[in-house]
Amino acid sequence: MSHFTETEIAYMQEQKLGRLATVDAKGNPHVVPVGFRYNSELDTIDVGGYNMGKSKKFRDAGRHGRAAFVIDDVLLPSQPRGIEIRGRSEAIQQGGKEILQNENVDAEFIRITPTHIISWGIDTHPYHPSSRKISS
Amino acid sequence: MSHFTETEIAYMQEQKLGRLATVDAKGNPHVVPVGFRYNSELDTIDVGGYNMGKSKKFRDAGRHGRAAFVIDDVLLPSQPRGIEIRGRSEAIQQGGKEILQNENVDAEFIRITPTHIISWGIDTHPYHPSSRKISS
Repeated sequence: MSHFTETEIAYMQEQKLGRLATVDAKGNPHVVPVGFRYNSELDTIDVGGYNMGKSKKFRDAGRHGRAAFVIDDVLLPSQPRGIEIRGRSEAIQQGGKEILQNENVDAEFIRITPTHIISWGIDTHPYHPSSRKISS
Repeated sequence: MSHFTETEIAYMQEQKLGRLATVDAKGNPHVVPVGFRYNSELDTIDVGGYNMGKSKKFRDAGRHGRAAFVIDDVLLPSQPRGIEIRGRSEAIQQGGKEILQNENVDAEFIRITPTHIISWGIDTHPYHPSSRKISS
């Protein structure tokens, strides 16, 4: 069973970009736009891209072991909606092309296993987020 | 003199949202969409919002003292552009309404003073970023 609601999954499946936050060896943050897939078999967020294997985010996600990821947009005129996923991060060496369904991205990808999900404007009012921690 | 180029400043002035990454007391990342202003007097990024003063990001930005901020979009059909700013972060108690020019946001706001700027697709090719550190 997924830790996400059906509406959250539908939202993640229609969005193309998210922003990934990682932490470097000194403990400082980094944030970048990235392509991703919601992985329904594992209930994870899989993040891939061009030159992923040599990127700072890939090294940082693997070393630190924790990442945060946000997918969001604004429905006009002014209805924000989105979902933030915090969780364990792994730097995985193989499988990115198949998972992202894109021959041009690297084999390396980042897998985020959720431990905390916060969403707003998807199942709830834009300014009344749903926040839940996941025990695993 | 600004550490940003004129084109980068024009880009920041036309965008309304960015995504702010902070680090919590345990050293783990958090990322959220936020409203911001480029502050041309101080050459800083000032981030404000509803309920800013009581937010996790405000506490984390003040405690940790470092934040990362990304502003980005995709020009159709597929030209990504954006700018990431890493720097020192301060949690400031007063001035948010005036700086954000919005009576509805909190007085509290976060100020980011850049120490590293990375931009792509603004002055450079989308896949050849300009990256520079700022000594201060």
